[in-house]
Amino acid sequence: MQHFLSTESWSQHSLQEMIDFAKALKNNKFQPLLKEKSVALLFFNPSLRTRTSFELGVHQLGGQAVILQPGKDAWPIEFELGSIMDGEAEEHIKEVAQVLSSYCDLIAVRAFPKFESWQEDRQDKLIKSLAHFSSVPVINMETITHPCQELAHIMALQENLGDLKGKKYVLTWTYHPKPLNTAVANSALMIASKFGMDVTLLCPNDDYVLDEHYMALGQSYSAQHGHQLTVSHDIDSAYQGADVVYAKSWGALPYFGQWEKEKPIRDQYKHFMVDEAKMAKTNNALFSHCLPLRRNIKASDEVVDSKNCIAIEEAGNRLHVQKSIMNTLINHS
Amino acid sequence: MQHFLSTESWSQHSLQEMIDFAKALKNNKFQPLLKEKSVALLFFNPSLRTRTSFELGVHQLGGQAVILQPGKDAWPIEFELGSIMDGEAEEHIKEVAQVLSSYCDLIAVRAFPKFESWQEDRQDKLIKSLAHFSSVPVINMETITHPCQELAHIMALQENLGDLKGKKYVLTWTYHPKPLNTAVANSALMIASKFGMDVTLLCPNDDYVLDEHYMALGQSYSAQHGHQLTVSHDIDSAYQGADVVYAKSWGALPYFGQWEKEKPIRDQYKHFMVDEAKMAKTNNALFSHCLPLRRNIKASDEVVDSKNCIAIEEAGNRLHVQKSIMNTLINHS
Amino acid sequence: MQHFLSTESWSQHSLQEMIDFAKALKNNKFQPLLKEKSVALLFFNPSLRTRTSFELGVHQLGGQAVILQPGKDAWPIEFELGSIMDGEAEEHIKEVAQVLSSYCDLIAVRAFPKFESWQEDRQDKLIKSLAHFSSVPVINMETITHPCQELAHIMALQENLGDLKGKKYVLTWTYHPKPLNTAVANSALMIASKFGMDVTLLCPNDDYVLDEHYMALGQSYSAQHGHQLTVSHDIDSAYQGADVVYAKSWGALPYFGQWEKEKPIRDQYKHFMVDEAKMAKTNNALFSHCLPLRRNIKASDEVVDSKNCIAIEEAGNRLHVQKSIMNTLINHS
Repeated sequence: MQHFLSTESWSQHSLQEMIDFAKALKNNKFQPLLKEKSVALLFFNPSLRTRTSFELGVHQLGGQAVILQPGKDAWPIEFELGSIMDGEAEEHIKEVAQVLSSYCDLIAVRAFPKFESWQEDRQDKLIKSLAHFSSVPVINMETITHPCQELAHIMALQENLGDLKGKKYVLTWTYHPKPLNTAVANSALMIASKFGMDVTLLCPNDDYVLDEHYMALGQSYSAQHGHQLTVSHDIDSAYQGADVVYAKSWGALPYFGQWEKEKPIRDQYKHFMVDEAKMAKTNNALFSHCLPLRRNIKASDEVVDSKNCIAIEEAGNRLHVQKSIMNTLINHS
Repeated sequence: MQHFLSTESWSQHSLQEMIDFAKALKNNKFQPLLKEKSVALLFFNPSLRTRTSFELGVHQLGGQAVILQPGKDAWPIEFELGSIMDGEAEEHIKEVAQVLSSYCDLIAVRAFPKFESWQEDRQDKLIKSLAHFSSVPVINMETITHPCQELAHIMALQENLGDLKGKKYVLTWTYHPKPLNTAVANSALMIASKFGMDVTLLCPNDDYVLDEHYMALGQSYSAQHGHQLTVSHDIDSAYQGADVVYAKSWGALPYFGQWEKEKPIRDQYKHFMVDEAKMAKTNNALFSHCLPLRRNIKASDEVVDSKNCIAIEEAGNRLHVQKSIMNTLINHS
Repeated sequence: MQHFLSTESWSQHSLQEMIDFAKALKNNKFQPLLKEKSVALLFFNPSLRTRTSFELGVHQLGGQAVILQPGKDAWPIEFELGSIMDGEAEEHIKEVAQVLSSYCDLIAVRAFPKFESWQEDRQDKLIKSLAHFSSVPVINMETITHPCQELAHIMALQENLGDLKGKKYVLTWTYHPKPLNTAVANSALMIASKFGMDVTLLCPNDDYVLDEHYMALGQSYSAQHGHQLTVSHDIDSAYQGADVVYAKSWGALPYFGQWEKEKPIRDQYKHFMVDEAKMAKTNNALFSHCLPLRRNIKASDEVVDSKNCIAIEEAGNRLHVQKSIMNTLINHS
């Protein structure tokens, strides 16, 4: 049995197989691959795209989805073994995992960081504990990485560019009024370098570099393809000759949990917005974003409404790659 | 492609065709008219009847419904084109529409007014923008009109009265402790006059007259059938000889957003409650209401529990008319 | 037409038939027993296990479930006949029941006590009124008893012990930081005595004895099998020779609604936790609990993780017994 918690545990070859099957599913949506199978979709955080695409995807494959949205953002569940549960937690993850495993054939989970301590959040305890105690496969619907988005992103890039090897890929930080999760940024770094692109991480300063774990993975994957992961704080040179520009905002990790201190720093970098002037420096680059996207903050209307923007196509691919992932976990592992 | 945003855009003939097919569906609930179709039901406000009847209706036609309930009553979505999204809104309606269109074959939306500015609310921007950017049909599940309720209402009246032409129809304002939406009142006015009934709007005083747009439509539809839309503040003459009494409470538009000023006025008109004494003046009229209904406030127990009350039948018809509407939009437009 | 509001209204023989069919369904999950049937699942309180098992169960039998979760814990519904609804309640249970009956073939309800007045809560008005006005069968998903849990519990015991007659059954109160509902305790008392077990209710003192109605039923069922219902405050003698230990926490009824007074009393009895030392006094007893369970508060890790713990099996059986109950109400009553 395999889980799909992070693309880190999957080879490029295996991921490509899942993407290839997703392309087949895009042309043939209804196949009984999950017949008589039940999938629990556990949302600790709200969702529109993920919820819709997973629920429809399960049904299009003949299965049954159950949506579980614990009422509050912080559903009190205990993760530590041996703890005396006299606090807020009413239930241990061990029982949650075992009970859901007894009802369902697959469990998918969305659980964002708590944004208080990165040392705590970076361990991704909830989904790891759930997977540990579950007797059925577990899928990550976004925790501190977002692997389903990764496959949808790569699929959309391949549909537009063909072979991705050697393409210049710029992951650019952008401004947002709030400090956001690094999940999609971590994911973009990993998957772009794993698929052989020449990756540049463009961000305002060293405080906005991503967690060392993902930086090291990006570096290692890059090296396997003969590249070097580049970190840049210079907008002009980063955009120069880019084939892909992927935009995402996130909060600076050194200020994690002390966001009032980070805010004045972040506020200085509103000019990182993706606009036509920056895109003009690229090699007619594709632009994308995981959505939701604040227009004229993260990217200008002109960029979002241009033919080069593939964000809607990427979002649409979520349906297909997730069906492919579920099929792999249920029928091929 | 046609949307179903308001009956204003549909002829009496087209609406009658949908009602006739709803009558057929009432006797034959399960037909694969939405096979392999997906419907997003987007609720910005809570619902019991609408939610249940739409979700079951989609499934009875072989389709798949996804229920999306943005957590808060005011889900922050941007509607203005060209705006710089540095406020609360995380996403533009353009992306919401395009992404949902890529997953689903139909989108239905409930979005009540914000109750702050009628000049703003009366434009019905959310659903109009969604329909504008959507590539699939959009259905109104109640915004500032409630067209699905209209068809269920007319269907129930026809089932009980046969031809409606020339019947005396009284839309009576009733008291409610809170200032409510005018949607169902606007709808009742439009549909009763469009179907040739002789319509009287009974309300406490001129402040409770409905928006000029709906008053003008009611007048125009009435004129087409040789009637005149009557506005009355006199209970006795309004009930005299009525064939249908439809009750609804709403807040006075001139006080929109300043509800504390409207309350003492509204509080003077508790005697507008529909009771046996008033119903005795009618031509053995049918009574109905869109539900939920506060007993002994809007109507007395005796009236609600009488044989002449068709509110439950009207609510039941929601299932059938909505299936018919979906079938029309998906298969015949 | 029969409802399933409490096992009180069902004979041991009828309940055993439902359990036997649940055992058959456990081996053959997919049967079209609810084909073209719709089930409304009405949750006034949150749920994970009940929600998942009911929703999946309906679908595995070919039916359609609609989940209705009135937004707030106290959805304002009026229960009294003849009341003037000028307070919070927007709708009378009579209309709710009639409308849901017109859409669905079965209604299941979870509605916990309000925890203010036991004299009020013990009347279980919401579900009784709903059943009274409904024209389709109603199932209790936990109010002041939890009959679905009862059948899952007995099924798990029979699967492990075979015939239950004469087995020593200990229902032990345990500590919990909050004053909980007596529903599962009432249920355990009723079902264990009805199925011929020799029942001991172990609790800290007379304040923790259950409501007289359930005590009298337990006594009466016990007498029918030649037993006497035992109330004990002595841990050692209660555990001595037990075949089954079922743990549950609840608030003391004499302090109902004045929980701040009850707390210091409850806090004195943390040593009621089920642990290995206590279990060592038993006849190698099975341990179970309805879940969620606070580890090392209600029961120690050693007990919960032991082979004798059947809580997960009992939770799993919820799926099967609920399918069997729905089948009985729809197809055999």
